[in-house]
Amino acid sequence: MLTKAHIESVVRGALAEDAPWGDITSELAIPETATLATRLVAREPGVFAGGDVVAETFRQVDERVQLADLLADGTRFAAGDTLARIEGPARGVLTGERVALNFAQRMSGIATLTSEFVDAVAHTSARIADTRKTTPGLRALEKHAVRAGGGSNHRFGLSDAIMIKDNHLAALGAIDDATTTAALRRLRAEAGHTVSIIVEIDRLDQLDAVLEAGPTGVLLDNFSTDDLSLAVARVAGRAVTEASGGVHLGSVAAIAETGVDVIAVGLLTHGARALDLGLDAE
Amino acid sequence: MLTKAHIESVVRGALAEDAPWGDITSELAIPETATLATRLVAREPGVFAGGDVVAETFRQVDERVQLADLLADGTRFAAGDTLARIEGPARGVLTGERVALNFAQRMSGIATLTSEFVDAVAHTSARIADTRKTTPGLRALEKHAVRAGGGSNHRFGLSDAIMIKDNHLAALGAIDDATTTAALRRLRAEAGHTVSIIVEIDRLDQLDAVLEAGPTGVLLDNFSTDDLSLAVARVAGRAVTEASGGVHLGSVAAIAETGVDVIAVGLLTHGARALDLGLDAE
Amino acid sequence: MLTKAHIESVVRGALAEDAPWGDITSELAIPETATLATRLVAREPGVFAGGDVVAETFRQVDERVQLADLLADGTRFAAGDTLARIEGPARGVLTGERVALNFAQRMSGIATLTSEFVDAVAHTSARIADTRKTTPGLRALEKHAVRAGGGSNHRFGLSDAIMIKDNHLAALGAIDDATTTAALRRLRAEAGHTVSIIVEIDRLDQLDAVLEAGPTGVLLDNFSTDDLSLAVARVAGRAVTEASGGVHLGSVAAIAETGVDVIAVGLLTHGARALDLGLDAE
Amino acid sequence: MLTKAHIESVVRGALAEDAPWGDITSELAIPETATLATRLVAREPGVFAGGDVVAETFRQVDERVQLADLLADGTRFAAGDTLARIEGPARGVLTGERVALNFAQRMSGIATLTSEFVDAVAHTSARIADTRKTTPGLRALEKHAVRAGGGSNHRFGLSDAIMIKDNHLAALGAIDDATTTAALRRLRAEAGHTVSIIVEIDRLDQLDAVLEAGPTGVLLDNFSTDDLSLAVARVAGRAVTEASGGVHLGSVAAIAETGVDVIAVGLLTHGARALDLGLDAE
Amino acid sequence: MLTKAHIESVVRGALAEDAPWGDITSELAIPETATLATRLVAREPGVFAGGDVVAETFRQVDERVQLADLLADGTRFAAGDTLARIEGPARGVLTGERVALNFAQRMSGIATLTSEFVDAVAHTSARIADTRKTTPGLRALEKHAVRAGGGSNHRFGLSDAIMIKDNHLAALGAIDDATTTAALRRLRAEAGHTVSIIVEIDRLDQLDAVLEAGPTGVLLDNFSTDDLSLAVARVAGRAVTEASGGVHLGSVAAIAETGVDVIAVGLLTHGARALDLGLDAE
Amino acid sequence: MLTKAHIESVVRGALAEDAPWGDITSELAIPETATLATRLVAREPGVFAGGDVVAETFRQVDERVQLADLLADGTRFAAGDTLARIEGPARGVLTGERVALNFAQRMSGIATLTSEFVDAVAHTSARIADTRKTTPGLRALEKHAVRAGGGSNHRFGLSDAIMIKDNHLAALGAIDDATTTAALRRLRAEAGHTVSIIVEIDRLDQLDAVLEAGPTGVLLDNFSTDDLSLAVARVAGRAVTEASGGVHLGSVAAIAETGVDVIAVGLLTHGARALDLGLDAE
Repeated sequence: MLTKAHIESVVRGALAEDAPWGDITSELAIPETATLATRLVAREPGVFAGGDVVAETFRQVDERVQLADLLADGTRFAAGDTLARIEGPARGVLTGERVALNFAQRMSGIATLTSEFVDAVAHTSARIADTRKTTPGLRALEKHAVRAGGGSNHRFGLSDAIMIKDNHLAALGAIDDATTTAALRRLRAEAGHTVSIIVEIDRLDQLDAVLEAGPTGVLLDNFSTDDLSLAVARVAGRAVTEASGGVHLGSVAAIAETGVDVIAVGLLTHGARALDLGLDAE
Repeated sequence: MLTKAHIESVVRGALAEDAPWGDITSELAIPETATLATRLVAREPGVFAGGDVVAETFRQVDERVQLADLLADGTRFAAGDTLARIEGPARGVLTGERVALNFAQRMSGIATLTSEFVDAVAHTSARIADTRKTTPGLRALEKHAVRAGGGSNHRFGLSDAIMIKDNHLAALGAIDDATTTAALRRLRAEAGHTVSIIVEIDRLDQLDAVLEAGPTGVLLDNFSTDDLSLAVARVAGRAVTEASGGVHLGSVAAIAETGVDVIAVGLLTHGARALDLGLDAE
Repeated sequence: MLTKAHIESVVRGALAEDAPWGDITSELAIPETATLATRLVAREPGVFAGGDVVAETFRQVDERVQLADLLADGTRFAAGDTLARIEGPARGVLTGERVALNFAQRMSGIATLTSEFVDAVAHTSARIADTRKTTPGLRALEKHAVRAGGGSNHRFGLSDAIMIKDNHLAALGAIDDATTTAALRRLRAEAGHTVSIIVEIDRLDQLDAVLEAGPTGVLLDNFSTDDLSLAVARVAGRAVTEASGGVHLGSVAAIAETGVDVIAVGLLTHGARALDLGLDAE
Repeated sequence: MLTKAHIESVVRGALAEDAPWGDITSELAIPETATLATRLVAREPGVFAGGDVVAETFRQVDERVQLADLLADGTRFAAGDTLARIEGPARGVLTGERVALNFAQRMSGIATLTSEFVDAVAHTSARIADTRKTTPGLRALEKHAVRAGGGSNHRFGLSDAIMIKDNHLAALGAIDDATTTAALRRLRAEAGHTVSIIVEIDRLDQLDAVLEAGPTGVLLDNFSTDDLSLAVARVAGRAVTEASGGVHLGSVAAIAETGVDVIAVGLLTHGARALDLGLDAE
Repeated sequence: MLTKAHIESVVRGALAEDAPWGDITSELAIPETATLATRLVAREPGVFAGGDVVAETFRQVDERVQLADLLADGTRFAAGDTLARIEGPARGVLTGERVALNFAQRMSGIATLTSEFVDAVAHTSARIADTRKTTPGLRALEKHAVRAGGGSNHRFGLSDAIMIKDNHLAALGAIDDATTTAALRRLRAEAGHTVSIIVEIDRLDQLDAVLEAGPTGVLLDNFSTDDLSLAVARVAGRAVTEASGGVHLGSVAAIAETGVDVIAVGLLTHGARALDLGLDAE
Repeated sequence: MLTKAHIESVVRGALAEDAPWGDITSELAIPETATLATRLVAREPGVFAGGDVVAETFRQVDERVQLADLLADGTRFAAGDTLARIEGPARGVLTGERVALNFAQRMSGIATLTSEFVDAVAHTSARIADTRKTTPGLRALEKHAVRAGGGSNHRFGLSDAIMIKDNHLAALGAIDDATTTAALRRLRAEAGHTVSIIVEIDRLDQLDAVLEAGPTGVLLDNFSTDDLSLAVARVAGRAVTEASGGVHLGSVAAIAETGVDVIAVGLLTHGARALDLGLDAE
């Protein structure tokens, strides 16, 4: 989740990148005493994310800039809606505008796309989860946006859960069912007891040997919906079932209807576009 | 442009984000001595960008990982093409894989989209330029990707060029042609002589007063193509002409045919999607 | 686990702390060309940890300092054993000596104490695990030392697993068995599916309601060994059983013999003393 | 001594280490509006240190957490005493708890152990001083804790005072009394005039040649108490006399009674254990 | 220009450099409750710069230190004038004194020297500009001081404008007028359209070929005043004319009278001495 | 003294300041394969300092740039002398040129000015020492340059030695000789035994009370040479004698001839000008 320290640090980096030695336009063209009242406005409908980041951006530029009526993250809005009122020294408002929008547009884009996937599976019990296909440097923000859109977070990264794929199994000497089960049991015994283990398979016949080892979850990669249904039935609650591969808005409902617990969707972060938001002077 | 120090720093941040205390899967499942030979493969056609970033990623993970046949940034490739061969300790290759892909997919996505815009205006003299609508923290990488795609860079940020918009003009007391010209001349006299000044207008009748002040360029925002043509004619080489607003692949050719020098396209960075690249074991 | 980048960063901080503007003694008293051959020697028996950190310390001070015969982390040694040979420019060896020892003595102290606990329960299947009672700034190093001593790591910190204690249950509205189970189920549904959930209880009668919710583990805090045995029997493999509270070398065997899976021992890190190691000139 | 900037930086590192992307337990289990009132309680007697660090920890987690009745560093307390009242948003209190305790327990452990040594020599004029055997990254905090316990600080590190040992003397060409004196005089002339020079010897017969050169102090390493008395008499106030080696609570009084000015005790920092403190809900 | 974040960062570095583990004199000699009222006094006349940096220095040392009557940057003062009143906890005032003075003396020294150059050319339209010959780490502060003295800023560094010198032209294959013009036109076409291009020449006969390519400016290096006059006449407003080389207070008026637009003066930053300012107790 | 880590860090900051997103001139105008051989040439006589910093600058820009015949710090040179040969990729040489010169010119300027003071007192036993009047961020480099010029370093900063001035004495309750002696003795007892104590006085009649307390040194501020002679006689070797105030090249010999041990000269760092060095293509 998002800590205050992390938001401060990411915003500091973004402002230093955009204006390392100041906003020369504002400093030359705007009197120091001028004030400006603006609204953060949606130019298309969506789900909001990034409120704290927007607030921190203006706070770092000039503490006198005031935010009011800031929408809570996760709120749906229509085109034309006001997402926040931002008012204060004109220089500060104009200097922070682009960085604040860059954050809010990207985060709201992710929240919005996530909500579309979530809506598409609302008639099932499946959860929509993100992946590690995030923008370098923005993972915590993007995973927060996924939650704001109603999605669920997969592991944060390589350090907090184990995901076993083909080449890991091969390296573990797993050449048949018995060796696969044995290898995964050894792994379970060596890993910390709070560390979840997800095993990725791409064929139904791999399932039993994996289940035998008692993993936290099985990731069914590029399975047909028929095979997903069969897999879910065979797992029978003994592990979390997770589908991935070829998931898009057109396919996700059918995947969810197979009964899988989780659907991992790389598109949530690497396929989201910036939502169209703007800062309008009042 | 991209400095070695900047690439090192961005990659360091991305690896720390993904694996703050190591890749527990590789460390438990892959023997320290195992090696792996892979190819970075394109799953769709495009223009490559991010080679140095990919190389630095694996170098930081494990200096023994070797890259060979790395495509030069800016090279076009077809689906199925090999963009690089990456070989070395299996742990290192697997640990760096996702971060390297996250960089290369985003940067190549931008380069590819840029090249589509560039191709669409190739029959004109117009340049396709980026904007400040970049991902926080990745501006230098994304602007590099725009160049790799054949595009041109607009100002880097708020510190290196002046862009005057409506509210700046208002703040400068520009209420008619005479005061506009006077205000811009004052600004020109106060700004450093190496600082370019771009003035944004949204109506043709604003043009003469701006030109009178001798700006570096005029940004014609949301002009019809007819008005763009008229503006270009009136400017007659006295300033760089730049079009922005509503630019997409369907509209960009017509805009370019008006004779404008530069077309600023926010989509290059905030509308690009990650290109589909993968790391395949050989 | 320990990344190269993390070790570099921790060592850089330690050297800057000890010698912000150089080692004035060595620079004034030792000729630049003098060399020194030393042995890292154990003055008491133990288990070694920190080899990579020692190596990185001397590398940062002077790349010409060579390490040879460095013991692998986790190796047992006797008093008088040589743990490494360190040789090179005398200034570099002397400047790095104290920082290298401070790391190795602390890490080996933890590995050694851990191994004593591990030995004490070797006749059982219980694992000895660390806690978050680590030295600020050194958690990854100390958790590595625990593994070197044969121990197992608990969660890394607050971000990678959930641990529910009394006041969390109270805040969740858990006032009886039914509400406890319901609250934990809600939590399970809201948490990411790779996030383990450990629930701490301090009375046997709390166990059933917790188990009903299907947690990853139950932490049995300050249970008598009789109650631990009863709890283990009742859990019957449905969750990881973990004992904590009042664990010391005198009590740990009896605790392990109750059949618990994991024993969390704060002493491993906050009660370890620096092992007596020294650098002797040859 | 401790600067505000240093405390902020060390605490920031500790919190980022423990909760890089937030405290997922509190965020999921504790309502944002819940409050909690706690007492920092001693479970054993001791001397307090680390008040400013505890306060900064909670301030960084959530500025709304309030501390009251915080004991001054250096205050003695009994088992059961309240060292501070900490109250505010429950999430903030719980998230900061472990990090605050890790600091306070370690620092108070050092202060308490120091005070035991100080008490043991209270009937003499000897001062108890620390060494460079500190935890990497925490030197300033640990040296502060030593002062809180009534001890005195030795040099901070390699940059602020000169300590000459055997191999330095050898490197300086000191093979007999005359060359030793000459070498030390050259060193005195080359070092900055504010830089203290301590010369370590391990035999009484080395003393005169060293004294002849007018050092700030002589460190009498592993001297018997008889030899210490002889050395003190011979120095006769011409230099600070300092004893080190084999100092523990059982031996320190006898060492102090020899009349040495300073006793350097590595145990103060590398032998202290975390004091048992806890945070109890009221 | 100067951002708040940059000032904070530079001041943080300066304080850590001067007092990494506190001001041991103040902490030992000054009671915590003592207060001190001082005036920042000019011991010689000049132009002030660095007010925000002085304020931030004391703010970081102790937020309770108050500044009043702080002169605005760019204000002229006489010897004996009070530039600010600084009052608060005596420890804080004394600890921050030297760092604050080091900043203010250097920045005011640059502002004062700049103002002398500006005064010397006040009867002309020439602007006095700085160069990249600044103190490493302090460029933004020093360029701010130049503006405070009435000067103008040249490019900030290597990333924000192009300056073409002899060896660049040679590398571009510019061996005669035609190839020079062609090379510069290629460069203009390849550079971003907001990037200014300054071309340095050292002979009058190079001018026409350069002008033909339409650069932003021509830098006339080490031209006699006669040749400067000729060059200005020939340029006739088609580019900014800039003189450099051998510029000092004795020569600058004659150079300015040639009609050049800008005079680049390395001395402003690398030849300025610290102005004599002091902090006097009231 | 200068650590490798410190030089790396200062150089990294300087390069990022000068070229945050690259040297756009070199990248556009110089082919990647072009090479350049240059000499670092003195345009005036002096004493060299900064060799390691120059080398690190080019190393960070491009590791393929080679330095040869680099003068050792502290070497005197004549106008026209070659201080180093620098050769390699033309882009790297040109990109690093200005930063390298900014360091070398400033450091050599300090070394040269220091050597002039040292020469002026060569017929006496007085040492020329620096002060804390250094450029923020460059203290270690500037103090190194002072040593290169034959000078001696005063305390590094506020943390490593005590300097007692008027207002400290007043705060300590020192109102007459007896209270002054007592206050200083208390201070001596409270400070660490490796911490030097320098007491500043501005009248001869203050001397006895100070000496009585046994300080490391007495700083005689703004004393006439007659009073300096009297003070030196009265101190008679019991403390280091140090003169400060009004020291310049015209007065320093007379001051040294009074027999003082040390002369503190603020001008060494805050009054030095950049020495005229250049990089000439061969």
